[in-house]
Amino acid sequence: MSYKYAYNTRDIKFCLKEWLPTGEVLSYDRYKDYYGVDDVDMIVDQIRKIAAEVLAPTAEDGENIGAKWADGQVYIPPSFHKVYRYLQDNGWGTTNMGRETEGALPTSLFGAVCEILAAANPAFMPYIGTASGAARMMQEYCSDDIKAIFFEKLLAGIWGGTMCITEPTAGSDAGDMLSKAFPTDDPRIYKIKGQKIFITCGDRDDVENIVHMYLARVEGAKGGTKGLSMFVVPKQWVNEDGSLSDNDVQCIGIEHKLGLKGSATAALVVGENNNCRGWLVGDPPDAEGNAQGMAQMFNMMNGARLDTGRLSLAVTANAYWNAKEYGKERVQGHLLTNPKAGRQTINKHEDVKRMYMLNKATTEASRALLYKCYYYQDVAHNDPDPERKAWAQDRIDMVTPLCKAYPSDEAWGLIAESLQSYGGYGYCEDYPAANAARDCKIWSIWEGTNYIQALDLMGRKWSQKKGTAFAATLKEIEEFITANKGKIPGMDREMEHLEKALASYRSIQKTIWGYMKSPETLGFMGVYARRTLTATAQLYCGWLLMEQALVVTKRLAEITEEDPEYTFYKGKMLSIRYYLTNVVPNVWHVEEIVKMADTSILEASEEIFEY
Amino acid sequence: MSYKYAYNTRDIKFCLKEWLPTGEVLSYDRYKDYYGVDDVDMIVDQIRKIAAEVLAPTAEDGENIGAKWADGQVYIPPSFHKVYRYLQDNGWGTTNMGRETEGALPTSLFGAVCEILAAANPAFMPYIGTASGAARMMQEYCSDDIKAIFFEKLLAGIWGGTMCITEPTAGSDAGDMLSKAFPTDDPRIYKIKGQKIFITCGDRDDVENIVHMYLARVEGAKGGTKGLSMFVVPKQWVNEDGSLSDNDVQCIGIEHKLGLKGSATAALVVGENNNCRGWLVGDPPDAEGNAQGMAQMFNMMNGARLDTGRLSLAVTANAYWNAKEYGKERVQGHLLTNPKAGRQTINKHEDVKRMYMLNKATTEASRALLYKCYYYQDVAHNDPDPERKAWAQDRIDMVTPLCKAYPSDEAWGLIAESLQSYGGYGYCEDYPAANAARDCKIWSIWEGTNYIQALDLMGRKWSQKKGTAFAATLKEIEEFITANKGKIPGMDREMEHLEKALASYRSIQKTIWGYMKSPETLGFMGVYARRTLTATAQLYCGWLLMEQALVVTKRLAEITEEDPEYTFYKGKMLSIRYYLTNVVPNVWHVEEIVKMADTSILEASEEIFEY
Repeated sequence: MSYKYAYNTRDIKFCLKEWLPTGEVLSYDRYKDYYGVDDVDMIVDQIRKIAAEVLAPTAEDGENIGAKWADGQVYIPPSFHKVYRYLQDNGWGTTNMGRETEGALPTSLFGAVCEILAAANPAFMPYIGTASGAARMMQEYCSDDIKAIFFEKLLAGIWGGTMCITEPTAGSDAGDMLSKAFPTDDPRIYKIKGQKIFITCGDRDDVENIVHMYLARVEGAKGGTKGLSMFVVPKQWVNEDGSLSDNDVQCIGIEHKLGLKGSATAALVVGENNNCRGWLVGDPPDAEGNAQGMAQMFNMMNGARLDTGRLSLAVTANAYWNAKEYGKERVQGHLLTNPKAGRQTINKHEDVKRMYMLNKATTEASRALLYKCYYYQDVAHNDPDPERKAWAQDRIDMVTPLCKAYPSDEAWGLIAESLQSYGGYGYCEDYPAANAARDCKIWSIWEGTNYIQALDLMGRKWSQKKGTAFAATLKEIEEFITANKGKIPGMDREMEHLEKALASYRSIQKTIWGYMKSPETLGFMGVYARRTLTATAQLYCGWLLMEQALVVTKRLAEITEEDPEYTFYKGKMLSIRYYLTNVVPNVWHVEEIVKMADTSILEASEEIFEY
Repeated sequence: MSYKYAYNTRDIKFCLKEWLPTGEVLSYDRYKDYYGVDDVDMIVDQIRKIAAEVLAPTAEDGENIGAKWADGQVYIPPSFHKVYRYLQDNGWGTTNMGRETEGALPTSLFGAVCEILAAANPAFMPYIGTASGAARMMQEYCSDDIKAIFFEKLLAGIWGGTMCITEPTAGSDAGDMLSKAFPTDDPRIYKIKGQKIFITCGDRDDVENIVHMYLARVEGAKGGTKGLSMFVVPKQWVNEDGSLSDNDVQCIGIEHKLGLKGSATAALVVGENNNCRGWLVGDPPDAEGNAQGMAQMFNMMNGARLDTGRLSLAVTANAYWNAKEYGKERVQGHLLTNPKAGRQTINKHEDVKRMYMLNKATTEASRALLYKCYYYQDVAHNDPDPERKAWAQDRIDMVTPLCKAYPSDEAWGLIAESLQSYGGYGYCEDYPAANAARDCKIWSIWEGTNYIQALDLMGRKWSQKKGTAFAATLKEIEEFITANKGKIPGMDREMEHLEKALASYRSIQKTIWGYMKSPETLGFMGVYARRTLTATAQLYCGWLLMEQALVVTKRLAEITEEDPEYTFYKGKMLSIRYYLTNVVPNVWHVEEIVKMADTSILEASEEIFEY
């Protein structure tokens, strides 16, 4: 079978130790007695070893055994049971969500841990991720009553968790959901009735209970998302004595998916025997029928969106590193530039190097994007200064749609390049590229499709705080350019590209805002949404990589070509150049397209697509 | 299961009846007593019916049963046996290759037949395609001795055929192959010894013999591709009395592939018991050791390259039409431009229409590209005027790499958009998009990777006949623009784009030629090869679509909006505009990138890709 773990952690260490002010994060009260920047290497190396030796060997079972459904129960591969317990018990899992957990890792470090693990078995990761999301949300929004029953077991990963939003008739539009909640004598508890689909880890046989964070509408509440409330709906009801009894949550099947076969994607029927109860999270709907569920769910969903970007990054990077391992061994053909040198390994060929470089540059860009966001999260959660907290939160809000959509959009094309580099072997499941291609495609869809991310960016994030938050980020990029123009040797053209991209981006914004003013042209916002999101990520990543270039330049000045670190830094410089010269120019290409205001899509009736 | 046939043939009819001079083709001596333009509808409708009712129902078996290997023999699904015989016996298959076949279809019509069939079961098509390729080559290059034994059965599809090039150590670089041929007492017959892999339809149980067109090196011939000879190596040796006996061609296994599971991709070991004989095609290697095999094989390979583009087109278009069928039924969300209208089917949403439009426009562009090539082929094969024959052949040479690479490059991204439009259901194998995604990925690799196509374009086709042939095509585009500028209402901007793209393209050529002059910059040819091929196809398709726009404009002037044909023509106009406004601008984007001459890839040592 095909799964191979080939992860390299050097760029992760660079991000954490050399680029981002991780020292500042680790000096916050919560962390200062536990971690210093010097611990980064140890943590990364240890989790790399666990990923390779403990987790990666289970990936095959995900593919070959898969998640199975029988008689109302999901069975996951036995090796998944073991590795889930191992990671949770050793502090590499949900426990890091706990605000009170001794030695919990900051998001910056836990993000790295999860990236390294995700590449080893992407189908496995949601078993931890969903429990973690539920724990995080319970910590944030649930009353002590609820926490007393569930939180400790959830945080220890003894029970699983899920996020139950999607229904057969309500996917992208959660407001259309039909799940209902009916009051009982206990105002904290409701009877729940409904059906959910596409519930990741919605059932599993490795935990005795699953805590579903479940959206439903209390009778009489408003229509749309505003009337939705959140309920804690356990698979097994927890009686007062701690014993468990069936809570009428039935798993009626799992999906037969293109990839991620080890991860169970469940369909749940809840309350069919009128016997399902859920704990209300927060307050009941107010007199106007407004409820809090959707806002609460966004806490979990934003986490899941970042997880999605990370999964995409990890699987893409691992596919690339597997491809280059193959490229070292595979002898084929002659070099275009030096045919007389005879047969060569393919990793020397121009087009193969192009495929690797595109992967290297884009995954490093995605990593920069995600790790910057982790840094913002640590500041937002821990900084004593409220202004700085708010500054960081603004940036989290802005980059979350980018973090979700950009790596997951790029994964499909990048993995195709890795696959292509194998030649015909890439199409065979004996090599890891095909597996990665199958796995990655859901990530542009789930947790809000990438179109929804783009609308979130343009519709909400651009205008948050009357547009000042977003403008401040663009201003930050502008100031970076002003301060550093001409100061990175060999990167003048790249800095010019960043400057040009920034100007183009502002022009894109202005153009789209113009379109948004009139109902006749509003449709262009939808037509250009996904191109605009991509351009946003490319501008933003271009900036982050140029920040990195400053650091790399300094390091290269300190060492010689013989230094064992030289190859890494030289490679960083090349991939940054590649990104700024071959990828970032797309921003002004998008500007040009957006300004054209071509009406062909808006004019098109549905009927023309019969042809 | 997932396979659904949703093909619409209106654009095919448009290409054949309204755009291309099919009447000219059908007036050639070979066809004039058999077909007129009026027969196009009947042929297309009939094959559409066969595709939907006879072939499409077998696609499930390809996925669920698949091709299986056991004890040295490949077994294909029983339904494939039946439909293979049905198509061959009813004149829809290999028989059309015969120059003497009564009523054989011209390439223009047979191309349409194959497109319509391919969408119904892409894994099945190679069983006909490989037999057809072998028949075509045998007709062209084999002596009467050989033809007397094999040709009739091959042409009737009673025996199968293959193209045996790839070996474990020789993929993209066929010149490295190790298969050997040793003379026997009969100068026409050699002993063959070697191993071949990735042989499409290399073994099958629905025919009693398979005619392998097999490349091997006669002892003493030159190294590289120049020393390769072609042999007819049957699976079963045909004795003088017509009886068959084992020819020591063993199938040792088939690949476990990402898709196309019904198509057997075989590994063959030939002559292991020193008992395999093959008929030499053409002359033995000359005194310098030069042989004719590779040149001969290109006849078959060029056919297979066009087939590959067509398979890609057919599967992409079918995935799109399936997606729009789903989009008609699926109610989800509110329109950005009209939220008050309430819940809508997704085919009304801006981004879903964008996904459909991108698919519609690009598949129509690919179809224009392929059908123009079919027209050139019919002229090259049948025109009485040698100059016109040569003119057509030049164009075939030029567009073959585009026909192979452009539809197969685009398929991956386009099918991903179709898949995305389903939301989470797209990731489930119960819907047809996932299947199409898995099927399509081999086509950018086999029959010469798309990088090889790009090198063929830039290295050979650009300079063929000292560059005059290629320049003549660009001149033709220029003349089209001059003649028609300002004459297509509502298409002024689109014509400007075509003009700008042509200028950019000439500039790309000039730039790359500049790079090719010096060993220091030659590497840029490799670095920019695939972008340049894409730009070539976009320019060329932009031209063809603008040719179509002329026709469509005329039709639209003749009918009202109530005419049942209005939707088709209006849709054509919109997709042409979309392509010229949203896709063709990439040509000048590529120009900009190519001129930057970024050295990051060329400077990169293999070692930097450790990170």
